[in-house]
Amino acid sequence: MYTAPRKHLSKDIFNSAIAAYAISAANELGVLGELQKYNCVDINDFANNNNLDVSSLKAIINVLCSFEICRPAEVDNCFYQGSVFEDIYNNQGFFLWLTRGYGELMQKLASITVKSNRINNYIPQDGRYIALASRQQGKLMVDTYFETALFEVSFNCVVDLGCGSGERLIELAKKCPQLKGIGIDISSKAVELAKSLVSEANCQDRITIFRDDMRNLQPKKEFFDVDTIFSFFSGHDMWPKENCVSILRNFRDIFPNANRFLLCDTYSSGLIPSSQIPIFTLGFETIHAVMGQHIPSLEEWMNLFPESKWRCVNQYYVEVPFCTIFDLRAE
Amino acid sequence: MYTAPRKHLSKDIFNSAIAAYAISAANELGVLGELQKYNCVDINDFANNNNLDVSSLKAIINVLCSFEICRPAEVDNCFYQGSVFEDIYNNQGFFLWLTRGYGELMQKLASITVKSNRINNYIPQDGRYIALASRQQGKLMVDTYFETALFEVSFNCVVDLGCGSGERLIELAKKCPQLKGIGIDISSKAVELAKSLVSEANCQDRITIFRDDMRNLQPKKEFFDVDTIFSFFSGHDMWPKENCVSILRNFRDIFPNANRFLLCDTYSSGLIPSSQIPIFTLGFETIHAVMGQHIPSLEEWMNLFPESKWRCVNQYYVEVPFCTIFDLRAE
Repeated sequence: MYTAPRKHLSKDIFNSAIAAYAISAANELGVLGELQKYNCVDINDFANNNNLDVSSLKAIINVLCSFEICRPAEVDNCFYQGSVFEDIYNNQGFFLWLTRGYGELMQKLASITVKSNRINNYIPQDGRYIALASRQQGKLMVDTYFETALFEVSFNCVVDLGCGSGERLIELAKKCPQLKGIGIDISSKAVELAKSLVSEANCQDRITIFRDDMRNLQPKKEFFDVDTIFSFFSGHDMWPKENCVSILRNFRDIFPNANRFLLCDTYSSGLIPSSQIPIFTLGFETIHAVMGQHIPSLEEWMNLFPESKWRCVNQYYVEVPFCTIFDLRAE
Repeated sequence: MYTAPRKHLSKDIFNSAIAAYAISAANELGVLGELQKYNCVDINDFANNNNLDVSSLKAIINVLCSFEICRPAEVDNCFYQGSVFEDIYNNQGFFLWLTRGYGELMQKLASITVKSNRINNYIPQDGRYIALASRQQGKLMVDTYFETALFEVSFNCVVDLGCGSGERLIELAKKCPQLKGIGIDISSKAVELAKSLVSEANCQDRITIFRDDMRNLQPKKEFFDVDTIFSFFSGHDMWPKENCVSILRNFRDIFPNANRFLLCDTYSSGLIPSSQIPIFTLGFETIHAVMGQHIPSLEEWMNLFPESKWRCVNQYYVEVPFCTIFDLRAE
């Protein structure tokens, strides 16, 4: 089949790249939130209230208008939600993840590809924005499905491996007044953020945050009562396979009373390259390939579980493409 | 007229942003050049010959394949030009300009919009990549039109205001064995690069490079013989209008024997925001708005010339959108 080449694709790609940056900026500045809440934003007021440079804000809004993410209102300097606002709003965290979390990596992609620059395997990334973006999309695309799964079995003490900002634990603690929780993260920035959010929520008696590497945990008396483990978007960090098997087996010793492990992660899509790949997937797979990190496929996960001392009894849908929650039970 | 909202625009924008980064990387690494030259690239050989990390290079190629910029050959690890290769190749400098020259600015767009972060009006930009990108697109989209214009009137001594890498002067010197040339640039990185390229080309007797601000030039004996001035993509730096008028008038004193000034610059498009804006324009206008720099329209330029002691006698087409060469003559 002959397909006529698309003319001026360069223009579409170029303008879209600018839109991606503008969406991230509008996300960070709270413009998208304001539009979602009131359907309308007065950019002079918004700039004044938030101490922003008006002409920069106008430039961002102008890009959003170009893509019908917002549109000019009848009144000067006021803008409504545009025809594609909802789609962009619901995916805004992915843009933050790409342009802020991994923006420097993508910008320096050529340099990072040169072997002599890969000293100590240094890969630039901003853990704070990755945690923020992950929490933002988690709220929109994962949390309700996760909670449905979680509440199917009773639990009293949970651990979140790779807890990021700790917000998931905090929200759960609010819903379950008896719950005790532990958060573990490898990033000291994330741990600092999580500790302060736990204090703010007045949960410090019920939620404890540790800085540690989930791949190399040692027993702790605090871990003894844990009955339920969960983990979001960190599972692939445990690979390659033999490492992952021994880490999962180790969890049985580290958390001797844990009977359930809800493991939520993105798996390799196996898709043939195409610009029609769903959002997030092309970015996730490209960045992990550059970092030299294997992303297991669904099949690879399924082949691994029988060796891990955990049995996969179910899988739950989430809205992030090529992502699932494995419901694992201690064997 | 009712237009149905485009579904999943978020995916298109997200994937395109990744494509923009990958095009820049493929440009920098010479992959696009290799594909242009041989229509085929073996990525294992290419990685070996250039000391590149193969899996990162594969990830970049994978993104290019997603957008049909290249496509897999019958042989493993070999790739041909894809259906849109030519369009992307001919515009590759714009991507370098955006993601490398202004990549940090775009990544930090939200922070830069916050007034308290705009101390000393610091705006991140990488002059080296801006010069490289500008030279790359200049060769493809400006040079032939410029030379046609230039050779309409005889010249013996030229000055390039904002000479960047100096390559335009060097190429001209090769074509005109009697030519003397002067290059002036405000960026010390550019001046350093230009001086070394002039030496490499063995033109140091005929081309002199000065670091200076074209907006504030002082007379020099070297300037006395200049009969022709030209300047590329720097004209808007002379604005606002009153400044520009006095700078242009000043050139008459600084270069007393210059009768002709070929001023090539991008002007404000005046376009209503739309994703169908031609390549470069949305980026150029957004970035200059964020930097607080006015981009004059064609009309504003035309209204200015009568006050400048330069008469505009002609305008030449170039392929960069909303860009022109003004042919100015000393009054």
